[in-house]
Amino acid sequence: MKDTIGIGLIGTGYMGKCHALAWNSVKAVFGDGPRPRLVHLAEVSADLAAGRAGEFGFARSTGDWRALIADPQVDVVSVTTPNAFHAEMAIAALEAGKHVWCEKPMATAFADAERMAAAAKASGKVAILGYNYIQNPLIRHIGKLLEQGTIGTVNHVRVEMDEDFMADPEALFYWKSEASSGYGALDDFAVHPLSLLHVLFGGVARVMTHMAKPYADRPLREGGRRPVETYDIANVLFELDNGASGVLSVNRSAWGRKGRIALQVFGSKGSIVYDQERMNELQLYTTSDNATEQGYRTILSAPHHPPYDRFIPAPGHGLGFNDLKIIEAHELLQAIAGRPARVIDFAQGLEIERTVHAMARSHEERAWVEV
Amino acid sequence: MKDTIGIGLIGTGYMGKCHALAWNSVKAVFGDGPRPRLVHLAEVSADLAAGRAGEFGFARSTGDWRALIADPQVDVVSVTTPNAFHAEMAIAALEAGKHVWCEKPMATAFADAERMAAAAKASGKVAILGYNYIQNPLIRHIGKLLEQGTIGTVNHVRVEMDEDFMADPEALFYWKSEASSGYGALDDFAVHPLSLLHVLFGGVARVMTHMAKPYADRPLREGGRRPVETYDIANVLFELDNGASGVLSVNRSAWGRKGRIALQVFGSKGSIVYDQERMNELQLYTTSDNATEQGYRTILSAPHHPPYDRFIPAPGHGLGFNDLKIIEAHELLQAIAGRPARVIDFAQGLEIERTVHAMARSHEERAWVEV
Amino acid sequence: MKDTIGIGLIGTGYMGKCHALAWNSVKAVFGDGPRPRLVHLAEVSADLAAGRAGEFGFARSTGDWRALIADPQVDVVSVTTPNAFHAEMAIAALEAGKHVWCEKPMATAFADAERMAAAAKASGKVAILGYNYIQNPLIRHIGKLLEQGTIGTVNHVRVEMDEDFMADPEALFYWKSEASSGYGALDDFAVHPLSLLHVLFGGVARVMTHMAKPYADRPLREGGRRPVETYDIANVLFELDNGASGVLSVNRSAWGRKGRIALQVFGSKGSIVYDQERMNELQLYTTSDNATEQGYRTILSAPHHPPYDRFIPAPGHGLGFNDLKIIEAHELLQAIAGRPARVIDFAQGLEIERTVHAMARSHEERAWVEV
Amino acid sequence: MKDTIGIGLIGTGYMGKCHALAWNSVKAVFGDGPRPRLVHLAEVSADLAAGRAGEFGFARSTGDWRALIADPQVDVVSVTTPNAFHAEMAIAALEAGKHVWCEKPMATAFADAERMAAAAKASGKVAILGYNYIQNPLIRHIGKLLEQGTIGTVNHVRVEMDEDFMADPEALFYWKSEASSGYGALDDFAVHPLSLLHVLFGGVARVMTHMAKPYADRPLREGGRRPVETYDIANVLFELDNGASGVLSVNRSAWGRKGRIALQVFGSKGSIVYDQERMNELQLYTTSDNATEQGYRTILSAPHHPPYDRFIPAPGHGLGFNDLKIIEAHELLQAIAGRPARVIDFAQGLEIERTVHAMARSHEERAWVEV
Repeated sequence: MKDTIGIGLIGTGYMGKCHALAWNSVKAVFGDGPRPRLVHLAEVSADLAAGRAGEFGFARSTGDWRALIADPQVDVVSVTTPNAFHAEMAIAALEAGKHVWCEKPMATAFADAERMAAAAKASGKVAILGYNYIQNPLIRHIGKLLEQGTIGTVNHVRVEMDEDFMADPEALFYWKSEASSGYGALDDFAVHPLSLLHVLFGGVARVMTHMAKPYADRPLREGGRRPVETYDIANVLFELDNGASGVLSVNRSAWGRKGRIALQVFGSKGSIVYDQERMNELQLYTTSDNATEQGYRTILSAPHHPPYDRFIPAPGHGLGFNDLKIIEAHELLQAIAGRPARVIDFAQGLEIERTVHAMARSHEERAWVEV
Repeated sequence: MKDTIGIGLIGTGYMGKCHALAWNSVKAVFGDGPRPRLVHLAEVSADLAAGRAGEFGFARSTGDWRALIADPQVDVVSVTTPNAFHAEMAIAALEAGKHVWCEKPMATAFADAERMAAAAKASGKVAILGYNYIQNPLIRHIGKLLEQGTIGTVNHVRVEMDEDFMADPEALFYWKSEASSGYGALDDFAVHPLSLLHVLFGGVARVMTHMAKPYADRPLREGGRRPVETYDIANVLFELDNGASGVLSVNRSAWGRKGRIALQVFGSKGSIVYDQERMNELQLYTTSDNATEQGYRTILSAPHHPPYDRFIPAPGHGLGFNDLKIIEAHELLQAIAGRPARVIDFAQGLEIERTVHAMARSHEERAWVEV
Repeated sequence: MKDTIGIGLIGTGYMGKCHALAWNSVKAVFGDGPRPRLVHLAEVSADLAAGRAGEFGFARSTGDWRALIADPQVDVVSVTTPNAFHAEMAIAALEAGKHVWCEKPMATAFADAERMAAAAKASGKVAILGYNYIQNPLIRHIGKLLEQGTIGTVNHVRVEMDEDFMADPEALFYWKSEASSGYGALDDFAVHPLSLLHVLFGGVARVMTHMAKPYADRPLREGGRRPVETYDIANVLFELDNGASGVLSVNRSAWGRKGRIALQVFGSKGSIVYDQERMNELQLYTTSDNATEQGYRTILSAPHHPPYDRFIPAPGHGLGFNDLKIIEAHELLQAIAGRPARVIDFAQGLEIERTVHAMARSHEERAWVEV
Repeated sequence: MKDTIGIGLIGTGYMGKCHALAWNSVKAVFGDGPRPRLVHLAEVSADLAAGRAGEFGFARSTGDWRALIADPQVDVVSVTTPNAFHAEMAIAALEAGKHVWCEKPMATAFADAERMAAAAKASGKVAILGYNYIQNPLIRHIGKLLEQGTIGTVNHVRVEMDEDFMADPEALFYWKSEASSGYGALDDFAVHPLSLLHVLFGGVARVMTHMAKPYADRPLREGGRRPVETYDIANVLFELDNGASGVLSVNRSAWGRKGRIALQVFGSKGSIVYDQERMNELQLYTTSDNATEQGYRTILSAPHHPPYDRFIPAPGHGLGFNDLKIIEAHELLQAIAGRPARVIDFAQGLEIERTVHAMARSHEERAWVEV
């Protein structure tokens, strides 16, 4: 294995910063693999790029992302720009022979996502999507419990994702309420629960969706109000490929919810409950316990839930949201090294996108839709 | 007002015992209204009836429920027999000029429920259903908060009811898995969340249902296995009459859940969360709090949430499930006295039944159904 | 066994009502034992007594408690008057050959408590104190877990009891802030945790106490302020007879706490956590669980935690505070019938009082005191 | 301000790794201040040092920590070696004109801590201790709430710190059970709660301590058992300089507790509850809420609780334990730049050590001790 690997980063918003933090920390946390060299950073202007490169520790910067992709020192390209740019940049990077770490969702149009998956396949390079929630050691542990049959055969799943950043009815109308931005909560949120379903259970077979607008219109800066075109709420009945039934609910106008991704998994021998707002806790109920002492166990994340141990040697001290991105960077490096890795690649990501679009079509048709 | 009121009780299973406890306690708890005289108790055999009458404190007993209804000392009849008997007994009691307190659901067939509602209307007597969860002082307080606009205009509701008494796949097949017993979780459970929706928000306009069987078959005592005919799981997308969207999920095979009725209400200024398993707690999030201190408040039931004060003068000491039935008895006595009362009468109960049947039809038709 | 037993009740405040509710319900709940006949009720005036007798269902009433004690129809006397009257009434009742159910604490002076214990011993009658918290089926289950060694050998105990009825510094000065009322939180609260320690672990060997006044003075109705003479806060280091170390904290000025009695028990193989504010939940951590799945289990009260089953046949539906008094009444009837019963009798109650007084002496002497 | 600052790190155990992670990330997280240059790493052997330097990103490495201190490129020295080495290294670094970031506790002997504080004072350099828990944005917010008087005047504080790494009675005897290692839980844990008390309330005036050994002896690898010489449990009654009463409990044999630091603060207008095991949540009860809606609010950490915003722009997504060290590094850089900083310097750290030693003396003397 090479001792180092060259990193390019396009975009320096929140996710760009997250990638930068991950690239800065992954070697110190895990100790193995190549040391990332922070080679090149691109932003919309050369000035902004230079400033951020100084903060994030990148050696070079540019206002032209194509220069970054052309940089022979760059081995991996982090794409963290707005969704509309993902396809063009990711495909260009793959065609230039780079590995790609692209933020989700893949693209705003399904056809673009298909092109991305095709480009990834053609390139032979590693191309993954930034589904960080699957990297939580406790989500990994849920997967292990399911494999071990700790709760028996799963027959029912409920998952909710709720935040409140669109909950204020008097917040000004902005692009997220325009139809051009997509369906609404469905594309903003649904991909995350779907990524969890994907790694834990596999694909979704069919869906029945209902979307709703909590607020008919929102105020304009210039006065007056404009009708809202997107749906801040979506609820979906579904069946998994494995036959289990389920419900998915997403709401970006849910006052009080800040980062809730609540999962309930029911099996023939127990159940598992998880909420991202308490990402270091897992609830497990199992019928193997003595009857009078059965109850949900609150399991705190600990070194025996890898790779928590790479961060902290003591249990119950808590990982943070940004730590998930460090794990993701490590999994990407594993994939690049040809080792088994827990990632959602472009092919798998395309299935998630396909499911989201099927959900939207179900709402329009008011009917069940096969994914 | 008369000083006393004569009580007849038919049935002495769990709900019969609950009614007996309520009739024994209501005067001591509330102090007002007539003192219930426990006049007559009916069971399937005279011996059983006599034994229970001794335990429950009834003066007379009978193996013939028609004798109880004919008893001129009886003013109110508690009907707590299996659902299949409700219609016949309730209608007979009403026709005999008695008030009726009938356990839910009304009947196994919708036509029977219609006949009950008609009989109640014709009788001019008070006829109510035993929807006890609506009597929780905290549910009443949620209603008050909604009326006051504390969380603004409600736009989304989620409600779940889950228990695990059918969760063991190796439990013997019994009548609850036979189609003759009804749809399954839908009639066992859905009426309870619907009673909450009814008192808090009004009616349900349309529904889209998916029902599921967690286990295809169950073992028979005599060996072999028999296919399960009912659905232990049901999930429903809905719209309320007031336009809010919602999801209802019920599951009687949900390992780990014992008495969960989880309600999430989202409004334009806040949200409310409640779970019957912690029936003395209410979660309120309101945007009127200072931004940096916003968070769900865990409000403990207290004397300022009437009628908690009639039970305990100190806050946070906790009511129990059986206490709800005492409150219900008191509301019934209020209704009989012609005062405003928080009850679900036969006419309102019929609307709940109508909704349940619409839900089942939606599943069969795989389509939205107007209630 | 006689079919019925005659009940006399002195006092109709909160605890009087609780006793009345318990006497009205115990037979219907448990089914066994004699039926209580509500014979005689005494209050400070004949009018008040008559009114309450009507509400509570007592046949006779009196303004003279000695008349009640002289009533040959009365077999058991419930004493629920202010603490200062306990000794005189309980001793008179015992001397009249009645069983006694006296509210805690025993008396305001230790010498009175000693006389009560002596009278109980001399009488040969059953004389118990109203320590209701020990009657929670989950507290009983904790005892069973300890006996079974589920958490190994207990080596440390922490217990807190907190409410906020004295937390407002601007609430008017009243008798609870006068030295004549006792020490403060120590006698108001400490007896309850001590009753739990008593039934779960046995006696307290030695104590080291610090008491504190959160507010130096309080306003008088007539204007001005008066220095507070009692201690709303007390903290005690202790060692149990069995050698385990512990801490007891009580605070009646603890804003936000309504009925908190929080117990933490640490053993060599696990730990148990309980809070009376969630009286239907028990937390158990045991090292017998697989390491990666160890965590506190939230065990909900259920029929397999007797006598929950006598109230509700379904798990997780919840008992209430008043239900504990019904269980207590049943235990008293068991004791009267000569059966094993879970009660704190006057002799045991005296040990609890002795411990409280030792705690107070420790504060004065600023030194460890042997109980 | 200089653009960069040179970092030396001595020790690469858990805390060494934490420092390395913080130095790698602080610039990218905060954007301001000098960029840390990872100059020199020291370990007990040159080989180990070289390996860790590669992982952590340090340019040079050495098996001789004095070489690191002599390195003119090093501006700040992180001291993360075992406690016994702190004094010698920190003093040498200060005398060499370096700033020092030393892990807590200061030293094993109080005299050493005094020498460290003197050296810091003499040097004119910044010398701080690694009390990371005070850096939690929510602890900072508690401080702000206290300053604003949100809960009025504080009159009572309880704090517990519990873990279970010594809870297994059959774990082999090791150095932590030897008297030479210190008192036990008191020095392992008490400094952390004291750091919180220090930043929130100021100093401790007097203490009354009881220490306990949950296990009298532990097995030896070579067979047999050896008496335990240290105290895994300590409980302390105390009074703060400001007059408030309090209790501190620490237990390193507390099965089930993993990283609990539970704080309860009671004031005249409300209360605050916090537990490090849920480090992204804060409980606030305030009497300014409408009476019927008062309850503990669960406030999730969010961008309006700085410097959470430097990590994540969305609320409720959660910081981790390691993030606190990044904040600490930033505060250290602020202090070095001469700006106000939230740190515990050697002078303040000495007061914490003084308090711990007073606690131990109180146990020996079985008496209150003035700090």
